[in-house]
Amino acid sequence: MPPILGVFDSGFGGLTVLRALLRRLPQARFAFLGDTARLPYGSKSRRTIARYAAQSAQFLVREQGAEFLVIACNTASALALDAIQEAVPVPVLGVIEPGAEAARAASRTGDVLVIATDATVQSHAYAAACRALGLRALEMACPLLVPLVEEGWTEHTVTAQVIRVYLDQLLGEAAAQGLNPDTLVLGCTHYPLLRPLIESAVPAGMRVIDSAEATAETAARLLSPLEGGNLPSAAQVRCFATDSVEKFERLGSRFLDRPVGKVELVDLGG
Amino acid sequence: MPPILGVFDSGFGGLTVLRALLRRLPQARFAFLGDTARLPYGSKSRRTIARYAAQSAQFLVREQGAEFLVIACNTASALALDAIQEAVPVPVLGVIEPGAEAARAASRTGDVLVIATDATVQSHAYAAACRALGLRALEMACPLLVPLVEEGWTEHTVTAQVIRVYLDQLLGEAAAQGLNPDTLVLGCTHYPLLRPLIESAVPAGMRVIDSAEATAETAARLLSPLEGGNLPSAAQVRCFATDSVEKFERLGSRFLDRPVGKVELVDLGG
Repeated sequence: MPPILGVFDSGFGGLTVLRALLRRLPQARFAFLGDTARLPYGSKSRRTIARYAAQSAQFLVREQGAEFLVIACNTASALALDAIQEAVPVPVLGVIEPGAEAARAASRTGDVLVIATDATVQSHAYAAACRALGLRALEMACPLLVPLVEEGWTEHTVTAQVIRVYLDQLLGEAAAQGLNPDTLVLGCTHYPLLRPLIESAVPAGMRVIDSAEATAETAARLLSPLEGGNLPSAAQVRCFATDSVEKFERLGSRFLDRPVGKVELVDLGG
Repeated sequence: MPPILGVFDSGFGGLTVLRALLRRLPQARFAFLGDTARLPYGSKSRRTIARYAAQSAQFLVREQGAEFLVIACNTASALALDAIQEAVPVPVLGVIEPGAEAARAASRTGDVLVIATDATVQSHAYAAACRALGLRALEMACPLLVPLVEEGWTEHTVTAQVIRVYLDQLLGEAAAQGLNPDTLVLGCTHYPLLRPLIESAVPAGMRVIDSAEATAETAARLLSPLEGGNLPSAAQVRCFATDSVEKFERLGSRFLDRPVGKVELVDLGG
């Protein structure tokens, strides 16, 4: 049997990470859990986030048999990766370090920009991961992008305008700090759906790095020794959520870029 | 001593209701509670919302001495007004019925439009309250408006454009249903901050009704018999929140239209 990869997010945005994983590991089995009853993690304390994330990780490992975990939630990756690693006996990969590593591979100037949610920016997890790799990073929260994606306005002129406003502000701030950025990291699971609009808004020559893609690449590299045996002819995916299954099913397919199918409701307790 | 009015919201949006109350009851004492640790209520079950709202109401009555409660949260008003009334021995006023009554007073055609959050629309509480008054109401969720207000873009061209997109859709749907609406109800505590943009976007002659204003008017009418004694020379306001005091203090002043001052952190338990 091929290994089961557990993928965890506070909501369903992490389906963009699962989508990237499916492209690289088309014959694996996946269990995805969205802790939709307790989102948003971003407004909660580190301790609460760690408890929720550990419970979610344990569900994927103990009840779904996951042998490898991908934390597709930027907030949980930023604030609870240690707690998750302590809670389960399998390898755990977050989205932030792969994103920072892809930025290092892409950048020539060593100066990178990061756009993310307010909670991720306030954690400064990307800046820290970039600094550890010798990069200078300037982060900016873009709170309107998640609701625009969830409204389905991924190609709307309004969204293009909002992206321009944010990028102008971010580039202005970078210039004021004497930075010369050549790479932009998409530090939120929702942003890959805006990639076409973002790519047409960045200055010529600027590279756009998608943390979801970078994480899937790292996972595929780490997993290749685990692979083997009789692979199924197609990937197997089961999706679980702790609440709001209807919204997950309705919006999830756009994130996964294929039908999410039936989402199973699970109760992780308080 | 003048009575203490307790004002409750899941977040700080209900400060627009407090603002309207302060204009009508400039010498009362107010205690405002935002249950910011547990927002958004909109994605939670009716039972959970009822429990949270009852706990919040009890805090205002038992610990702050509130003699009258205004539920400034549309979701709690829609789903938990009964539970709150059972939980506390003081009069309780929600925002939905005053909004519907103001719409009836304003409308000549009897057809009204309601814009609100997704959770409020899905509860159909405004449609039911309007129907009970002999009005036909068409509701529409406008999920981008709250984040636009919280981003501070209350006068931005992007926001004006988003409002036009939503209103065009709503007016088109009304026409398709054979309705002749002449009144638009703002069914979300954040929307009063968009009133100038909304008023310049509606068709000529359409009345815009603000539930916050309507609720404050009703509260002032109900409270006048309670008033009396030695009134303070100015209103007294204490603000409490269950989490994210910093965001409350930072954004709250715009909603209240005066400094919110120090927000006190309270713990209502799980």
